[in-house]
Amino acid sequence: MNTFGTLFRLTTFGESHGPALGAVIDGCPAGVPLPSSVLQAALDRRRPGQSSLTTARREADTVEVLSGVFEDVTLGTPIAAIVRNTDARSADYDSLKVRDRPGHADAVWRDRFKHRDHRGGGRTSGRETLCRVIGGAVAEAFLAREVTELSTVAWVSQVGALRARFPEGPLTRARVDAHPTRCPDPEAADAMAQQILSARDVGDSLGGTIDLRIDGLPRGLGEPIFGKLKALIPQALGSIGAVTGVLWGPPDVLERLEKPGSVFHTARDVYGGIQGGMASGEPAHFRVFFKPPATLADLAKAGRHDPCILPRAVPVVEAMVSLVLADLVLQMRARPHER
Amino acid sequence: MNTFGTLFRLTTFGESHGPALGAVIDGCPAGVPLPSSVLQAALDRRRPGQSSLTTARREADTVEVLSGVFEDVTLGTPIAAIVRNTDARSADYDSLKVRDRPGHADAVWRDRFKHRDHRGGGRTSGRETLCRVIGGAVAEAFLAREVTELSTVAWVSQVGALRARFPEGPLTRARVDAHPTRCPDPEAADAMAQQILSARDVGDSLGGTIDLRIDGLPRGLGEPIFGKLKALIPQALGSIGAVTGVLWGPPDVLERLEKPGSVFHTARDVYGGIQGGMASGEPAHFRVFFKPPATLADLAKAGRHDPCILPRAVPVVEAMVSLVLADLVLQMRARPHER
Amino acid sequence: MNTFGTLFRLTTFGESHGPALGAVIDGCPAGVPLPSSVLQAALDRRRPGQSSLTTARREADTVEVLSGVFEDVTLGTPIAAIVRNTDARSADYDSLKVRDRPGHADAVWRDRFKHRDHRGGGRTSGRETLCRVIGGAVAEAFLAREVTELSTVAWVSQVGALRARFPEGPLTRARVDAHPTRCPDPEAADAMAQQILSARDVGDSLGGTIDLRIDGLPRGLGEPIFGKLKALIPQALGSIGAVTGVLWGPPDVLERLEKPGSVFHTARDVYGGIQGGMASGEPAHFRVFFKPPATLADLAKAGRHDPCILPRAVPVVEAMVSLVLADLVLQMRARPHER
Amino acid sequence: MNTFGTLFRLTTFGESHGPALGAVIDGCPAGVPLPSSVLQAALDRRRPGQSSLTTARREADTVEVLSGVFEDVTLGTPIAAIVRNTDARSADYDSLKVRDRPGHADAVWRDRFKHRDHRGGGRTSGRETLCRVIGGAVAEAFLAREVTELSTVAWVSQVGALRARFPEGPLTRARVDAHPTRCPDPEAADAMAQQILSARDVGDSLGGTIDLRIDGLPRGLGEPIFGKLKALIPQALGSIGAVTGVLWGPPDVLERLEKPGSVFHTARDVYGGIQGGMASGEPAHFRVFFKPPATLADLAKAGRHDPCILPRAVPVVEAMVSLVLADLVLQMRARPHER
Repeated sequence: MNTFGTLFRLTTFGESHGPALGAVIDGCPAGVPLPSSVLQAALDRRRPGQSSLTTARREADTVEVLSGVFEDVTLGTPIAAIVRNTDARSADYDSLKVRDRPGHADAVWRDRFKHRDHRGGGRTSGRETLCRVIGGAVAEAFLAREVTELSTVAWVSQVGALRARFPEGPLTRARVDAHPTRCPDPEAADAMAQQILSARDVGDSLGGTIDLRIDGLPRGLGEPIFGKLKALIPQALGSIGAVTGVLWGPPDVLERLEKPGSVFHTARDVYGGIQGGMASGEPAHFRVFFKPPATLADLAKAGRHDPCILPRAVPVVEAMVSLVLADLVLQMRARPHER
Repeated sequence: MNTFGTLFRLTTFGESHGPALGAVIDGCPAGVPLPSSVLQAALDRRRPGQSSLTTARREADTVEVLSGVFEDVTLGTPIAAIVRNTDARSADYDSLKVRDRPGHADAVWRDRFKHRDHRGGGRTSGRETLCRVIGGAVAEAFLAREVTELSTVAWVSQVGALRARFPEGPLTRARVDAHPTRCPDPEAADAMAQQILSARDVGDSLGGTIDLRIDGLPRGLGEPIFGKLKALIPQALGSIGAVTGVLWGPPDVLERLEKPGSVFHTARDVYGGIQGGMASGEPAHFRVFFKPPATLADLAKAGRHDPCILPRAVPVVEAMVSLVLADLVLQMRARPHER
Repeated sequence: MNTFGTLFRLTTFGESHGPALGAVIDGCPAGVPLPSSVLQAALDRRRPGQSSLTTARREADTVEVLSGVFEDVTLGTPIAAIVRNTDARSADYDSLKVRDRPGHADAVWRDRFKHRDHRGGGRTSGRETLCRVIGGAVAEAFLAREVTELSTVAWVSQVGALRARFPEGPLTRARVDAHPTRCPDPEAADAMAQQILSARDVGDSLGGTIDLRIDGLPRGLGEPIFGKLKALIPQALGSIGAVTGVLWGPPDVLERLEKPGSVFHTARDVYGGIQGGMASGEPAHFRVFFKPPATLADLAKAGRHDPCILPRAVPVVEAMVSLVLADLVLQMRARPHER
Repeated sequence: MNTFGTLFRLTTFGESHGPALGAVIDGCPAGVPLPSSVLQAALDRRRPGQSSLTTARREADTVEVLSGVFEDVTLGTPIAAIVRNTDARSADYDSLKVRDRPGHADAVWRDRFKHRDHRGGGRTSGRETLCRVIGGAVAEAFLAREVTELSTVAWVSQVGALRARFPEGPLTRARVDAHPTRCPDPEAADAMAQQILSARDVGDSLGGTIDLRIDGLPRGLGEPIFGKLKALIPQALGSIGAVTGVLWGPPDVLERLEKPGSVFHTARDVYGGIQGGMASGEPAHFRVFFKPPATLADLAKAGRHDPCILPRAVPVVEAMVSLVLADLVLQMRARPHER
């Protein structure tokens, strides 16, 4: 239940206010360069406290690699890495012993498991996503060696009602990270930042969308029936706390779906890079919908939260997709394009 | 790859123009009433040739149960059921030996597996979904015994640009099936039927959306991290050929996502019945997006296809969701609400 | 529960007195030559009624391939094959409605699943092993293409207290099949046959051992920790009904284990071809222990059984091992000898 | 590959000379009492340096629980626990950079994964079994709550050629632990200890057998076909480094197998507590064969090893069996004795 993947597998553990969170990545082949600085850099991209747009909670989020890597190269054995919780302040959460946060899974979780850890979100905390970022970084190190032309870039495409223009030209993570909103349309980005700060000031919150583009997918990647790219990626993204929908296809897919097939199918690459569930060789495009965070100001005096999680969710989206791709690459290596 | 589920598992097999298609359902407990008429009735709901809105291809689609059922009750052993292909006319497809259908997975599939079965869609055919309908019918027979209040109903909510009103009052499969479009809004349904027939006449095709409502979900159903209801259901639905997106939450979720959290979270049941990935006890709502079928008239002279697959996709959507629910119910029985 | 393997997977279904038994093999790559005569030949090796040494129950055991093969070559899709039950005579078993057979799983099975199929062994019947033989034949067709030097040969090495000499010279299935006992030591074989016939005449039964030799294992095959060759093969063999133990290492391993390491480790290839759980490149040797069948003459008037199942178990042992090897070969293809 | 189990799952990680080894146990229900002292006590039973019979390598083997437990009770989330390596002395192993140890997996491992960790056994070290002991301790804490009458006790039954008498009377771990050999036959135990010390003095090593008795198995535990108790337990035990065979049934099964069925089946409980792969309700008995350790004195000047690993292997055998049982108990809870 806490493991994701078939051949390239991530297992996550840890509660937000326990001693540590961690990830075990099993199935990564030997010989992949993986200095711990790579994992640290990935974590730094999702760390809270990067800008005024995120939660005031500060965590060093320093990664420690416990196994699977020797002299900065993977051994082919399980890679375990942990991050200790340092700024937990679980006293902040003592009031939650008696009441549940509206819009939060507190009540459902307690009913299911009875012995609830009232200290912050416990296991359901967004903090669990740092384990996914570690897993994604290992997946990307493997993919970088195996599928050199692959590139997976996510960006914030909408905040509240503010939509960014679809980016033209080469899309890189550096270009996305250039603005604290992680929106590569500079004009929209500034407006989004303004809106997020306003929401924060009044204790409100904002949702929106993250777009994802994958270039360089090996043709044929994906499995035909239940392991389709377009089945596994929605599962991967749907498992992220605030996600409330996933669409794929061309950027204008929502509008285009209203057209008859004779119109729909004229555009080049209308399939979003996927045919029969497998990569066609064209770029693939996904759009991920996020609801606004549930914890409002009056409740969050103690627990400190992001007014808009989208900027920090970008590396989580990329990580989950990279885990899917690494797994499918291993599966295709097992049953490659047959001669 | 051709198996879906962890404890309640469906394995499908069969090519659209081979001897037979079939399903093996493993993990269904013993003692569940399951006369083969139940499976036949489920298949009849997706069978081609039910009305003028569907493909002219006629298949009797008669199910034969080979194992796992004795005197109309499940034995706790794997349930195998097959449907023989009778109206295959694979000669119709001989021309496809030399050229691929645009918008179809023919080329990708051939590149991946080399030895392509050119006779119709082969394994990627929509005909494979009849195996899912068999699996779903077994899942529903199990769920009917285990979670008596559960009800899973899907319906056509949009065809092309035509949107139906959201249904009020009790929603049943009988009400949905009352119109050949499977749209419970009679006015919209008639317009949709008209539009589908027009598309058929000019060799065009139409996409749209199917909505799904689940009532009576046991509180706490779903697993916290990667096995969330909202991860597994999108995977299940994304694995259906023409599906190109899944959204969940209230019926107006697309509009509501543009609002700040203070507005978003005021509505009762804005979470679509899911909190922290687990069922909250409220009804859950999903919207599934379908692209128009790719095979156009000029190509399809030989292969016979539906101008709009949505009416026949309704039982497939329900089947996939029922498979997810049966699996999660077994998982919750293993680790129930703890004392 | 009814599926074996991770990447090369066999799912079996069917009760001994239901309409049919069958196997679905998922994960076999495309392009493997697989005429149905190959499956039929494998089934013929385990079929009852081959000689006076086996049960009088006669089953044609004719295989029908339903999917996954086109023009005698695998498609890369699931291969489904069934065998219909023809000589069931379930009336013979009507008396079992009221009493259980001692030494048989009847009582345990009924307690677990309540709704017992009293007609013969039902799902626990030795007849289920024909599905494994189908799966093994597919695995061997794949392995024959992939690991050309591989050879897996099992033979009867002991019946009751009669031990055969360890075979010298090249060992082939043809050599083993030359005698109806499947013991390649002609002298011991004749004595075994005599003993089996005597047991049959007095309604008694006999156990013994089957030895297995695997040549040509790819060096490094097997996974390091829980997926060791020496973990997966005992699991595979232990899942066969009458098996009551598995030893591996040199033919004299039982005696050699009593010696200190300085003696034990002097012999060449004392490890039975396995080091650290992975194939060393040397031949591997396993010994499988079978208890005598439980159904005695006075009970078996109706149900017809083998006095000694070992000759017919030889192809079942080979099949289970081939399934393990095919699975591990796919796993090693996914994560090969790294550069 | 490094995960064991389906519903109750152990994932292990760590190299013997890296920073730490660890275990993640996923699937343990909430509400199980689990103070870390329980894990520490389990580790202390396998720790090196307990007596003159074991390796001189001293490891504190102090466990640290990182997640899944709050106020000494399980949360229903993954339980992660680590043990840091303190007495590694990997300089001792520097000579191994150039030559491989005979009888060791060094060469196979290097061929498979290329990037070998030459520092001690790396991942294949017996030290990895401490992770299994952690997993087994969690499994036993769960089983203690769930199946109160269950008892799993292993003991050393043979060292070299010295066989102990089969124990009479109540068998407990305390009785087994009373002698440093973990053999409950005091006379044989003293002789064994003498033999082990002699072997150590001359740099030799000894193998032998461990017997295992399971009382109180819930009737019907185990799955019918591939998940039989007698398939999963041999897999679990075969995955332990030095194990070279597993037999089950009555204590005299090797001799009894030579008898005809009429004799074999007269003894009460001849089936070792298993029928049709499922627990019959009677005690079950397994015998596990261990080869002598491969590292001889002349090689082991640097690496420090046990002359006979059997006493320390007893808790590892128990742990692996408890993991199987916990997994099967969860599976039976999902599909219980049906009404």
